[in-house]
Amino acid sequence: MAGNTFGSLFRLTTFGESHGPALGGVIDGCPGGIELSQSLIQADLDMRRPGQGGLGVTARQEADRVRILSGVFEGRTTGTSIGFLIENTDQRSHDYSTIQDIFRPGHGDFTYEAKYGQRDYRGGGRASGRETVSRVVGGAVAGVFLQTLGIGVQAATVELGGLAGQKLDFDGAKERPFFAADPDMVGPWQDEMLKVADAGDTLGGIVELRASGVPAGLGEPVFDKLDARLAAAIMSVGAVKGVEIGAGFAAARSLGSINNDALNAQGFRSNNAGGILAGISSGQEIIVRAAVKPIPSIALEQLSMSRLGQEVSLQIGGRHDICAIPRIVPVLVAMVRLVLADMVLLQRRMGSSR
Amino acid sequence: MAGNTFGSLFRLTTFGESHGPALGGVIDGCPGGIELSQSLIQADLDMRRPGQGGLGVTARQEADRVRILSGVFEGRTTGTSIGFLIENTDQRSHDYSTIQDIFRPGHGDFTYEAKYGQRDYRGGGRASGRETVSRVVGGAVAGVFLQTLGIGVQAATVELGGLAGQKLDFDGAKERPFFAADPDMVGPWQDEMLKVADAGDTLGGIVELRASGVPAGLGEPVFDKLDARLAAAIMSVGAVKGVEIGAGFAAARSLGSINNDALNAQGFRSNNAGGILAGISSGQEIIVRAAVKPIPSIALEQLSMSRLGQEVSLQIGGRHDICAIPRIVPVLVAMVRLVLADMVLLQRRMGSSR
Amino acid sequence: MAGNTFGSLFRLTTFGESHGPALGGVIDGCPGGIELSQSLIQADLDMRRPGQGGLGVTARQEADRVRILSGVFEGRTTGTSIGFLIENTDQRSHDYSTIQDIFRPGHGDFTYEAKYGQRDYRGGGRASGRETVSRVVGGAVAGVFLQTLGIGVQAATVELGGLAGQKLDFDGAKERPFFAADPDMVGPWQDEMLKVADAGDTLGGIVELRASGVPAGLGEPVFDKLDARLAAAIMSVGAVKGVEIGAGFAAARSLGSINNDALNAQGFRSNNAGGILAGISSGQEIIVRAAVKPIPSIALEQLSMSRLGQEVSLQIGGRHDICAIPRIVPVLVAMVRLVLADMVLLQRRMGSSR
Amino acid sequence: MAGNTFGSLFRLTTFGESHGPALGGVIDGCPGGIELSQSLIQADLDMRRPGQGGLGVTARQEADRVRILSGVFEGRTTGTSIGFLIENTDQRSHDYSTIQDIFRPGHGDFTYEAKYGQRDYRGGGRASGRETVSRVVGGAVAGVFLQTLGIGVQAATVELGGLAGQKLDFDGAKERPFFAADPDMVGPWQDEMLKVADAGDTLGGIVELRASGVPAGLGEPVFDKLDARLAAAIMSVGAVKGVEIGAGFAAARSLGSINNDALNAQGFRSNNAGGILAGISSGQEIIVRAAVKPIPSIALEQLSMSRLGQEVSLQIGGRHDICAIPRIVPVLVAMVRLVLADMVLLQRRMGSSR
Repeated sequence: MAGNTFGSLFRLTTFGESHGPALGGVIDGCPGGIELSQSLIQADLDMRRPGQGGLGVTARQEADRVRILSGVFEGRTTGTSIGFLIENTDQRSHDYSTIQDIFRPGHGDFTYEAKYGQRDYRGGGRASGRETVSRVVGGAVAGVFLQTLGIGVQAATVELGGLAGQKLDFDGAKERPFFAADPDMVGPWQDEMLKVADAGDTLGGIVELRASGVPAGLGEPVFDKLDARLAAAIMSVGAVKGVEIGAGFAAARSLGSINNDALNAQGFRSNNAGGILAGISSGQEIIVRAAVKPIPSIALEQLSMSRLGQEVSLQIGGRHDICAIPRIVPVLVAMVRLVLADMVLLQRRMGSSR
Repeated sequence: MAGNTFGSLFRLTTFGESHGPALGGVIDGCPGGIELSQSLIQADLDMRRPGQGGLGVTARQEADRVRILSGVFEGRTTGTSIGFLIENTDQRSHDYSTIQDIFRPGHGDFTYEAKYGQRDYRGGGRASGRETVSRVVGGAVAGVFLQTLGIGVQAATVELGGLAGQKLDFDGAKERPFFAADPDMVGPWQDEMLKVADAGDTLGGIVELRASGVPAGLGEPVFDKLDARLAAAIMSVGAVKGVEIGAGFAAARSLGSINNDALNAQGFRSNNAGGILAGISSGQEIIVRAAVKPIPSIALEQLSMSRLGQEVSLQIGGRHDICAIPRIVPVLVAMVRLVLADMVLLQRRMGSSR
Repeated sequence: MAGNTFGSLFRLTTFGESHGPALGGVIDGCPGGIELSQSLIQADLDMRRPGQGGLGVTARQEADRVRILSGVFEGRTTGTSIGFLIENTDQRSHDYSTIQDIFRPGHGDFTYEAKYGQRDYRGGGRASGRETVSRVVGGAVAGVFLQTLGIGVQAATVELGGLAGQKLDFDGAKERPFFAADPDMVGPWQDEMLKVADAGDTLGGIVELRASGVPAGLGEPVFDKLDARLAAAIMSVGAVKGVEIGAGFAAARSLGSINNDALNAQGFRSNNAGGILAGISSGQEIIVRAAVKPIPSIALEQLSMSRLGQEVSLQIGGRHDICAIPRIVPVLVAMVRLVLADMVLLQRRMGSSR
Repeated sequence: MAGNTFGSLFRLTTFGESHGPALGGVIDGCPGGIELSQSLIQADLDMRRPGQGGLGVTARQEADRVRILSGVFEGRTTGTSIGFLIENTDQRSHDYSTIQDIFRPGHGDFTYEAKYGQRDYRGGGRASGRETVSRVVGGAVAGVFLQTLGIGVQAATVELGGLAGQKLDFDGAKERPFFAADPDMVGPWQDEMLKVADAGDTLGGIVELRASGVPAGLGEPVFDKLDARLAAAIMSVGAVKGVEIGAGFAAARSLGSINNDALNAQGFRSNNAGGILAGISSGQEIIVRAAVKPIPSIALEQLSMSRLGQEVSLQIGGRHDICAIPRIVPVLVAMVRLVLADMVLLQRRMGSSR
């Protein structure tokens, strides 16, 4: 209820600040009997690390080693809660005096202070993107569970800095810089990144996610529709400012005759609905898009306010990330997996008793 | 958990099908001591009725009279649960033989059948837009509670059939056809509606919502961010396929230096964030946009599948709505109110103990 | 969260005050495809009425007719939420001036006032035992669901006014006054009732509940143990002040060698555990006992406090119930059913994936 | 939902098996700004260790050092989630061959196997009493929060092996063997312990808990009554088989005129209700009693069943605990604290808006 738990049956509860001793969490509700190894989870976690998915990422070098502490016995889940831990190894003493008493624009400094009357000013504390390591671990476990059911989630970047690609190659995206959906965009995006970096600025982009193998029938009407849960999951990730399902905003500009997905004896003939009708999965591919804003920490000087309410000029030193895109992609995948794992469990007990 | 409850502390639980005897619900968690009259709620419900907000709405004439059954004593809420009921008065026997065994494209027929192994085929059952009457009642009570705190929610249509307006007049929108944000768009939208209606087709649009008076500090990190909750709330409404906060998808095409909302001694100088930073309200206006798809019931002949898996041709007779827009606007307002009421209560107990 | 919802997957949300226009609720999570008729639920509701289970019950004559408003189509549940309503027909204007400003001892008057700063003083409002009609309806639906799985719940009174019986005949109890477990106790209990009634006093008793056909494996460790959920369910009923599972308090006075239920090839050889080990059902009969306090409304003059903090003498006029026992029995049955239905659904999705 | 989370606003989620690498959890919802030191929590944890509270406790020597990993900054809670960890240091390789394929009577072996189709057979796994270390940590944090509000929880053993004391000295109990409420019972209980130990048997007892400083108004009608929540909390602790509030089972044998707590201008004149009326705290002391069964691991030979369904004779070797009592007392205190912290937060936002 205080926001650190996600899901209803397949549940992830997390803790940890960017500069505290460790981050971690508890996965509750994962069915027993599933093969689960630490190395498998580690592989997912490594996808989120700097250097993966190409340029534009943080200089911070965390090993991010996950330890599974419970819920697994003889290589399989037992059905009890799975605790996990990621120690923060890069805890050099830093100088936070520049930002301790200043609200950085675009960050949660002002709002956390307003909410709690205080804040952990070291690197964003709980509001830091670093909390997403726990999401990735939770999502990895959800992914292993989904895999036993033949459900897979993929993601690719379809737009960066306003430059949209044409091709949608999800299989190859995993290996490409930026997780680019279109191989032809890697070059232009790298050029754009360098240009923006030189200008001391940052940029954003759009990520598309696809879930395949999802059976028809997932999603709980009225309020826990599958699309509602996905929207919440995606929007809960720090930099996301927009979510679309299927045709999304384009549907608002379409006609019923075009937007409706007709059926024939073989099933649906198009997928403007993004695999969800009336909040319930149709058995088609689930399609979700997320709008990711530019990283708020820019090298350029900015106008801001101090904790005492005075106008101040702020320049954030050090190396900077230019775009959240490569690192956020595995996080978005994790969130979609967590939603699907939860909805699968919810549906498992909802089937007709007949 | 089975989807018919919304909210954590300020909670709405609903029931009812489009062609059952009645719809209604339970509002739980509304603080005691708040002046609440049935007529006030009725006024909100009347906003959702056909004829309100202009053209393009259903021919069905439900009186939609709400009865408050508990939780109010001597004109004020008591703090206990508020039960309410709306009887379905328009229950003439209909002929459903056309659609009983056919999955209508764009509707939940196929997915409900997949989920439950059966469905109430009369007018969509629980998947019908008619369930939103209960949301409006819940939202009306939430609105009264929010009003005691100086919080108000407004909505206006900013785009219809791909035609976007320029002006944003929320105060006037309430009185205008389509709840149009721009008075100059009423004419063009009416023309577009007639044209599309003549073609046997339907269209969609975009609604913008604004919440003012929202104190800084609402929203629970990490997973129950205010924007995550709003996204779920908006996306849970039937026809919605996309949600944006503040600059939304445009933020993905912007630069950090532009998208960041700078501050000075007077506070924020812009509002690309839509009043939410790191998932917590900043005290600025909350800005949300919803993409509404075209109504799936079109007059044109469509290709579909029967329950037996055969290809069939479907033509839905009778009068048709052309656009969900006017009727959906009060529903979206209700959802934003429900989220804010819930987050206000959550924050009320999270304040610092110092 | 505000207390009017029970259960996690099989959920009951209720509303209604003793002297408001109606009571009712929403049952959410009942699987689809289950045969459900209004008359079946009505039969359960009739068990709770005065005149059932013998002497000592209220003079109030409510017809208590339940209306099912949704979630049932063509005689079967659809899987969507089931709304129901019971109109209060006995709403004669009463004179509450005696109790309006006085806190009745043993009642919730003082605590409701403390909690909400006000209260619906007509007959106890939400704190009245009348709210249990909604529990009985919810429990009836749960009972129908459980029956499809071969699970049944029975109850009988094992002690009244300190007079304990020896026999445990659950099948016959349903037909006997007081739902007496021991037919030989009906006479002595009737005598005791009359004696206490003559003295202007009231009395309590102990009810035992048994659930049979419960499969092994229900209950969620660590905090949602089956016994924990049962204890909460039973203790949530107004007059209950104690709960035991199996041997209960007697186990605290026993030895491990005696209290342990040994097993052989045929299974458990005794049932001191009451069918629950480590919070999970063992497949044996579930055994629960509830201690019911004497009804607080006595004819005798009592010392109390007014809302203004003055000492007052209070004498409650009119006819009085002597014991909650007969009316509370169907309510306790309903609560056990609601718990079991919920735990069945929880377990259904927790099964091993192997 | 899968049972490893306790509470609604002040929440504890735990993980860990008796013989896994570590135990721990996440405390979510603790208000910010509260002074919290690791040593304070450690002190509570030390209360649960062998050697505390006298005889009859396990030979296992775990240091049980807690590490707080998040949610505390500069000595105060920040309002974000508090992660904590207790490493299992006593992980010598054991020989479990005796019990690996046998269901120990009175333990969860049979039921865990039935639930999950497998189990972690090393020392009980998740069903082991060892999981309660996490409860104690959660309860310690809740206790610090409650202390800022003047609320305190005490516990004492009032009966052991059927031998009940007369005196109720809670202040002194903390220092006495068995946390004995009556100093005169320490001797008799020690004698009884030795006698039972010699016979290869075990015994149980009754613990009484008192919460003082609890304001009137805590508890949420109808289903989340304070007593219902307390009953669930207490019953969720492994060995507990019965719970009473106030007069408890004795109330069932009393008369209304005696059981009712009369009021005068100074307030309540007795406390048979145990500080709870209609599920809401009255401002009096909260009184709860728990019946603790004898420890199921006895030295005597027992009859049991193997996993293959064969009758077997079982003798559990090694040193044995004779009674759960001393170690369970701090756990019960923790549970009452967790309930009260949760109910305080729930009430904080429920107050009248007038």
